[in-house]
Amino acid sequence: MYRSHKCGDLRIENVGIEVTLAGWVQRTRNMGGMTFVDLRDRYGITQLSFNSEKNADLCEKARKLGREFVIQVKGIVIERESKNDKMPTGAIEIEVNYLKILNASETPPFTIEDSTDGGEEIRMKYRYLDLRRNPLRKNLELRHQLGIETRKFMDGLGFLEIETPYLIKSTPEGARDFVVPSRMNQGEFYALPQSPQTFKQILMVGGYDRYFQIVRCFRDEDLRADRQPEFTQIDCEMAFVEQEDILQTFEALVRHLFLSVKGIDLPEFVRMTYAEAMENYGSDKPDLRFGMEFNDLTKLVKGKGFPVFDAAETVLGICATGAASYTRKQLDALTDFVRKPQIGAQGLIYCRVNEDGSLKSSVDKFFDETALKAWAHQMNAQPGDLLLILAGNTDKVRKQMSELRLEMGNQLELRDSKIYRPMWVVDFPLLEWDEESKRYYAMHHPFTSPKMDQIAWLDSDPGKVNANAYDMVINGVELGGGSIRIHDQGLQAKMFEILGFSKEEAEKQFGFLMGAFKYGAPPHGGIAFGFDRLAAMFGGTDSIRDYIAFPKNNAGRDLMIDSPSSIHQDQLTELALKLSEA
Amino acid sequence: MYRSHKCGDLRIENVGIEVTLAGWVQRTRNMGGMTFVDLRDRYGITQLSFNSEKNADLCEKARKLGREFVIQVKGIVIERESKNDKMPTGAIEIEVNYLKILNASETPPFTIEDSTDGGEEIRMKYRYLDLRRNPLRKNLELRHQLGIETRKFMDGLGFLEIETPYLIKSTPEGARDFVVPSRMNQGEFYALPQSPQTFKQILMVGGYDRYFQIVRCFRDEDLRADRQPEFTQIDCEMAFVEQEDILQTFEALVRHLFLSVKGIDLPEFVRMTYAEAMENYGSDKPDLRFGMEFNDLTKLVKGKGFPVFDAAETVLGICATGAASYTRKQLDALTDFVRKPQIGAQGLIYCRVNEDGSLKSSVDKFFDETALKAWAHQMNAQPGDLLLILAGNTDKVRKQMSELRLEMGNQLELRDSKIYRPMWVVDFPLLEWDEESKRYYAMHHPFTSPKMDQIAWLDSDPGKVNANAYDMVINGVELGGGSIRIHDQGLQAKMFEILGFSKEEAEKQFGFLMGAFKYGAPPHGGIAFGFDRLAAMFGGTDSIRDYIAFPKNNAGRDLMIDSPSSIHQDQLTELALKLSEA
Repeated sequence: MYRSHKCGDLRIENVGIEVTLAGWVQRTRNMGGMTFVDLRDRYGITQLSFNSEKNADLCEKARKLGREFVIQVKGIVIERESKNDKMPTGAIEIEVNYLKILNASETPPFTIEDSTDGGEEIRMKYRYLDLRRNPLRKNLELRHQLGIETRKFMDGLGFLEIETPYLIKSTPEGARDFVVPSRMNQGEFYALPQSPQTFKQILMVGGYDRYFQIVRCFRDEDLRADRQPEFTQIDCEMAFVEQEDILQTFEALVRHLFLSVKGIDLPEFVRMTYAEAMENYGSDKPDLRFGMEFNDLTKLVKGKGFPVFDAAETVLGICATGAASYTRKQLDALTDFVRKPQIGAQGLIYCRVNEDGSLKSSVDKFFDETALKAWAHQMNAQPGDLLLILAGNTDKVRKQMSELRLEMGNQLELRDSKIYRPMWVVDFPLLEWDEESKRYYAMHHPFTSPKMDQIAWLDSDPGKVNANAYDMVINGVELGGGSIRIHDQGLQAKMFEILGFSKEEAEKQFGFLMGAFKYGAPPHGGIAFGFDRLAAMFGGTDSIRDYIAFPKNNAGRDLMIDSPSSIHQDQLTELALKLSEA
Repeated sequence: MYRSHKCGDLRIENVGIEVTLAGWVQRTRNMGGMTFVDLRDRYGITQLSFNSEKNADLCEKARKLGREFVIQVKGIVIERESKNDKMPTGAIEIEVNYLKILNASETPPFTIEDSTDGGEEIRMKYRYLDLRRNPLRKNLELRHQLGIETRKFMDGLGFLEIETPYLIKSTPEGARDFVVPSRMNQGEFYALPQSPQTFKQILMVGGYDRYFQIVRCFRDEDLRADRQPEFTQIDCEMAFVEQEDILQTFEALVRHLFLSVKGIDLPEFVRMTYAEAMENYGSDKPDLRFGMEFNDLTKLVKGKGFPVFDAAETVLGICATGAASYTRKQLDALTDFVRKPQIGAQGLIYCRVNEDGSLKSSVDKFFDETALKAWAHQMNAQPGDLLLILAGNTDKVRKQMSELRLEMGNQLELRDSKIYRPMWVVDFPLLEWDEESKRYYAMHHPFTSPKMDQIAWLDSDPGKVNANAYDMVINGVELGGGSIRIHDQGLQAKMFEILGFSKEEAEKQFGFLMGAFKYGAPPHGGIAFGFDRLAAMFGGTDSIRDYIAFPKNNAGRDLMIDSPSSIHQDQLTELALKLSEA
């Protein structure tokens, strides 16, 4: 062993003992005849002291240590003269009598501090240096702990972690697959799984009852800031259950994680239908840390001669508590906000409810004080509040208002990152109509079970059918989602038909699943959680990249190993592949 | 919930309560007016009883249930008239008053019994049915438990499980990579990892100190019975350690697994150098459940006029205790065994040490009783023993004798599957000379550290240098292996040079690692265990396929999902790939 203790171990009780430490030089300071070195490892920092009067050579050697040198020292634990009560080891230091340089270091291209001066690109290239910084270390420790606690909880409930294959079969439904050419079966390809969906259903048919897996998944999509081509899921499935069993089980999992990892006892999970969520928050993942629900003003304001309202399918308002004091400039900024192309509103109507009870709107020309009072009354506005109103097509105005609501939540500091408001959104529609391709798509996936009492509508009005599908949402972030599955081969065949699969396509891609359903498939359902996102939520930040040891950039590249890269011609030849001309 | 209890739950204490069960019909039996159904789930079997006098319709319905139907029943727990003490639930049965068929089943293509009548191919195609059989279920439960206990132990020692990427970079050293074409970077490829080797070393450079991961790895090799294109490793790495630290840590892990999962307290781990193992057992993974060490007879037998011995570089003997009674037929069979092409010996010399002390050999023409006595004496043979002797080139005769030793171990029933003899093989050679390509290959991998006191030989006689490399072997099976790594950029560059890498190639493939070594790489080392093989060893069988939920066959195919398969032309176009003409 290169060390008797770690750099976070030693305390005042250890004064007098001889220790051996190893780690990285965080910094060196010279003060008169003394040289101090902060020695760092994963567990903390310990101060080393070198006295030039006692040992000039050793002190000289210490002075020459560069940042990030790896050293081993022996010495005696002594009490510090000036203690640092911000450090767990701040009461002691090591009076060093032996120093060995285990490895030198060039000067790092950015500082290894909690706040670094390195840009994102250089930090990804030198990821091994970025990983030395406390914030990243804490993130990976948190992620580890979440994994341990998840497995502990699931194991305790009798769930088996069963590994499913990574080399599977390409299916065009859903996102784009990464494919893997087969050398032994030339011209054929494996695909990397977008999720172990069909395998976990097969496990239920196989009688495994309670399955989970923390598993890598792959999607070849154009990347956004918060997407990675490979990501990790907590993937779960249960047999002989109804929706309520799943909700209870996984509410308990997430409750356990918050309690064991963060010491937070989550409040009760709100249950809300998809329809309610869309109506009141314009989103299937509402942030419930604050109210500001939508108020439908359509009936109240239409037909009063204001063309914008009169032409609108829907007029929605929100009441921003205490925001009547917003200046003209602030209101203009809000208008600019809703007019941004990614939000797309035409304009914003506001009405201040002044402290004296008077009302002042941006549409005073069309609505007198009495009319405005009726708005304020319906929206339950109090003096000092600000009413914000958008009008237009129902779906669009909901989405716009949802963005505005979140923006107001931010501005009014109603989205406290230390508060967690969990909920289930249930009763999702089974199908989504796509205007462009003139066909239905599965809102969740093609294996999701419709509500059994709405099954007749599958023929008459498929778009009206709801699914036994549910999402877990916390603070406006979708942490997980799932559904009760179809376990009847006839119903599954019908679903494929509605989704536009020919019999041959359905058979080619999912024949094994339909086949499995012939041999006693139990009722089953499940859920999957985004593990990267879960870690980010527990860490209190948005960027999932900071919770992945070796993430890829937006072009899908690993800048550290410089991948993807060209391969040898003989590798291509063995795979019977040629590159197309550019 | 579809059930109040599981099929393994109910006992005599539960008599009188009303229960709801769900599961699969294992079998139905009609006896007079009674129908009995064995209901099965993952947890056990419960007998259901239907009385035609009490409820004729229900009994009739029960009689029509086919094998593997999924049903739900309600009823009262009653005491059985004729108890079955082989079943945990054998004291009770359920007097059923409600029966619902949740799903029908076609007749399975093979029986769902501990011993099935299905061949391997059909069982792989209908894997969901094979997975219902007890032996496979127990294997997957065992595997789950090994995962849980491994993580518990590693977490307890402060190891962090850190996920490394699956989309990495192809490196021609080692086995063949599976590659993944990149759509966003056309003409470029990711590779699937053969192991997270470089990433775990990077994590050590990143200060993570104690890393592990239970992780999938991929090798595109022609498959043998016990190989899979994707397999799972327990992958581990530590910083600031020497070889002894690693051996202690992972000996403790495996000891914990045997104790917690099998209740077995392993004996002390034997330590043996590679040289000793080759000399005494002709193998770097000797089975220590029995002795029968090699005895070098070369000096004793050469130059006595027997051409086979005189021409041989080495003559080796083993003493098979109590096998003097082998018949001529048995001895001929042993000769046939060593002459098999995969073993390749020219012939086998034997010498019986009879109970009366007389000796009888197959080479009596060349060796008289006195000579044979000297053999028996050197080999410490006792009356009743059989000496078996092979001669030839040292390396070859060792391998042949190793096979013969194992065969004799089998024949004499010395390889008890309930006994475990763990060991470490240490001091492996650093390099292997390949005659064909006239170059050295890394015996372990290019990152393995040479013995520091032999480093001068790297220039003068590289083949003589030993490595800080070690394998854990139990009962002749290599469970894991690893090494202390190089952490010095100069030494690593030299290793690449010895292995025939040009500077450019080394830079292109491993530049990031060499780069990382410039910034304070700590001393480090690690180990990886084959998780599939570990599970198989714990299960007491050889076939790793039976411990993988969805294995592939020898052609790399998943027969259930029928993969690999062709993909759409537009997928190829997006990837800028063309299939070569066949």
